[in-house]
Amino acid sequence: MAPLKSWLEIDSGSHFSLHNLPFGIISTTSTPKPHPAVAIGDQVLDLQIFTEGNGFAALSTIQPHQAVFSRPTLNDFAALGRPMHRVVREYLQTVLLEDGPFPGVLKENTSLRDNALIAQKECHMHLPMHITDYTDFYAGLHHAYNVGVLFRGPQNALQPNYKHLPVGYHGRASSVVVSGTPIRRPNGQILTDPAVKEPILSPCRKLDMELELGCFVCKPSAMGEPVSIKDAPEHLFGVVLMNDWSARDIQAWEYVPLGPFNSKNFGTTISPWVVLIDALEPFASTGLQNDIKPLAYLDERERKSHYTIDLSVELTTDSGNSSTICKTTATNLLFSFPQMLAHHTVGGCPFNVGDLMGSGTISGEGKSGKGCLLEQSENGKVSIRLSDGQERVFLQDGDEVTITGVCGGEEGAYVGFGKCSGKILPAMEIAT
Amino acid sequence: MAPLKSWLEIDSGSHFSLHNLPFGIISTTSTPKPHPAVAIGDQVLDLQIFTEGNGFAALSTIQPHQAVFSRPTLNDFAALGRPMHRVVREYLQTVLLEDGPFPGVLKENTSLRDNALIAQKECHMHLPMHITDYTDFYAGLHHAYNVGVLFRGPQNALQPNYKHLPVGYHGRASSVVVSGTPIRRPNGQILTDPAVKEPILSPCRKLDMELELGCFVCKPSAMGEPVSIKDAPEHLFGVVLMNDWSARDIQAWEYVPLGPFNSKNFGTTISPWVVLIDALEPFASTGLQNDIKPLAYLDERERKSHYTIDLSVELTTDSGNSSTICKTTATNLLFSFPQMLAHHTVGGCPFNVGDLMGSGTISGEGKSGKGCLLEQSENGKVSIRLSDGQERVFLQDGDEVTITGVCGGEEGAYVGFGKCSGKILPAMEIAT
Repeated sequence: MAPLKSWLEIDSGSHFSLHNLPFGIISTTSTPKPHPAVAIGDQVLDLQIFTEGNGFAALSTIQPHQAVFSRPTLNDFAALGRPMHRVVREYLQTVLLEDGPFPGVLKENTSLRDNALIAQKECHMHLPMHITDYTDFYAGLHHAYNVGVLFRGPQNALQPNYKHLPVGYHGRASSVVVSGTPIRRPNGQILTDPAVKEPILSPCRKLDMELELGCFVCKPSAMGEPVSIKDAPEHLFGVVLMNDWSARDIQAWEYVPLGPFNSKNFGTTISPWVVLIDALEPFASTGLQNDIKPLAYLDERERKSHYTIDLSVELTTDSGNSSTICKTTATNLLFSFPQMLAHHTVGGCPFNVGDLMGSGTISGEGKSGKGCLLEQSENGKVSIRLSDGQERVFLQDGDEVTITGVCGGEEGAYVGFGKCSGKILPAMEIAT
Repeated sequence: MAPLKSWLEIDSGSHFSLHNLPFGIISTTSTPKPHPAVAIGDQVLDLQIFTEGNGFAALSTIQPHQAVFSRPTLNDFAALGRPMHRVVREYLQTVLLEDGPFPGVLKENTSLRDNALIAQKECHMHLPMHITDYTDFYAGLHHAYNVGVLFRGPQNALQPNYKHLPVGYHGRASSVVVSGTPIRRPNGQILTDPAVKEPILSPCRKLDMELELGCFVCKPSAMGEPVSIKDAPEHLFGVVLMNDWSARDIQAWEYVPLGPFNSKNFGTTISPWVVLIDALEPFASTGLQNDIKPLAYLDERERKSHYTIDLSVELTTDSGNSSTICKTTATNLLFSFPQMLAHHTVGGCPFNVGDLMGSGTISGEGKSGKGCLLEQSENGKVSIRLSDGQERVFLQDGDEVTITGVCGGEEGAYVGFGKCSGKILPAMEIAT
């Protein structure tokens, strides 16, 4: 299939081709209250202005719900459900299509074009969703194995439960921030000398990033009522890139017996544009083969519910120089988002629209595919050489980490996520 | 000090004396939309009706904020801050006081009395707060020790970090429910035969309760900015009873390496009335003595920030018979809520108004003080005999667990929490 062509000029390398149309929340100088938009090329279509300008006149099904396009988050749009997301996205594709059926809506409506199409660089991006609960999984098999080898050796690298269920933990919704938000190095208790057994309060010395995907839920489920693996896809709104910043030394001391806590809750960064599940479907794939047969409630029976997303991580130092420190793909997961949701709800845990699930760190095989510095530096033992000659084992103040992700190899038809970036600020001074 | 006496008739054994005035969210047949009230004796003062009836006419400071009393949660009232909570509670005390200065407000205003004072049994209780994030700690020293002995023996019962920091994990906000909500026994993966290493999906066979306190936060703190131990009390709104239902067999299989997950997120019950910190102050106490000196950011220097709350747990079987299965006090905690908040934020984790912190299971010394069945039955090995002759090691379907808590030994001056109850429903049938 040839790439869809728009009457708008879109760079053929853009993440935001007409095949994508991801949703986000913007504010601008002229409309300072956050509101929805879709990304197209290096512009956005401001959905509040588009709605006010009667842009949805030719789509009667959305008209009773048009107020969702003036909300400060995408939750109400998400809550309309996947059939409505599909209808709206496809309608916007036809509006933007070179020879689409509705040229009067926008293409030939110069005053609405002038108002509703805005350069992305003039938009301030906000968290796309009000995040109600956040759960982080651990479904990256190579990551779990590599970390297990570091701490328990290759014989016991994976815990006995690992292949039977998507291991996960509840995260901190309040500390999820949008790309571009600085991340302050956390202070915390660390054990510098295990022989002494007395921790100190110190700025984290093993600050790390984690390459992940996040997936938002768009359909609520009641307490006590599981979401079946068959129904789970209808509960998923869309996908973002995620950097689950981690303080490895704080984690090592605090995590027994109840899991990671302050080592994770100082910040988690997500990309601003939610790529809808429908936009990802052409890139659907199986994930990693599980060599055990999962219990029936997790059995997807060959369904392709992973996505071939090329992922990379860049580290930019205070010299301004950037180095690609990881390249991998999102198929390196043992469990899919539908499986995560089916497992999360099997005991009756209720979900709300706006709940976020993280995939866990995605690592490929081989050193260049390792999705966090803990793995790459073997917990601080091996230096990573950057292109400006600097070396790292963990992150330094002033380092900026940028995750990118994109589907498809065809010019003009990319479905990408843009960037998920965060820069490290020095720790707060500890009051004495 | 003699008990404060009201012109309202209040049973001398009531948890809701004039010394208390806890806040909650009610709905009634005549006002079906949830809104705030305070409990007084066996009645409530409906704050929406009281406000509409000009009840706050003599309290000018609250007047710009009176809309908080028609909200469906207490979050906006909480956000006014502790000085305002104090002013409002003390004003309501004077309004209800036998010889108070404002008899015209309510005592002699029969039409407002008739409308605003409602029997508790005619009120439907709702979650008092919209819960933004929920964290559960593990600060009950005897509980942590007893559980540690069961799984690791007495030599290694407490992990090395235990006395240095309040160990905690992020919980699931969506599954916190108000007292009276039935709790469905969860299904989940359990390992019936460790030799086989293949889990089954099954209704939980080791369903447990946990006796805890919960504390709501009323003051936000920004990402990257710790709340000092000195400032922490001003961030605390009030306290509720909490039952952190637990599925011990699901927990045993799932919890490595990231902590409890589905074993906890099927339901957490809280009592409906939030007892303000000011109401608890007369019962302030030190908690358990920590035999290590905590780091400075956790050092309370003799401040009494625990409360002497007599706690008990009743188990009511399907025969209708109730047995008291636990009696203890809330001073059996190694860390206080201010210490929990100081630790939770030391790395920069942001807080919102409505965040909930659980204390962890509160167990006293001795068998009758054990705050969960895991401890009492030694993980299923020792039966607990109930007063109707039945025996339990864990909870059966139809069992109702009721936690109560009350401060003070003086008739007519109790500051209590009422009840925190939940009844077990059978597991959902597993689709095959």
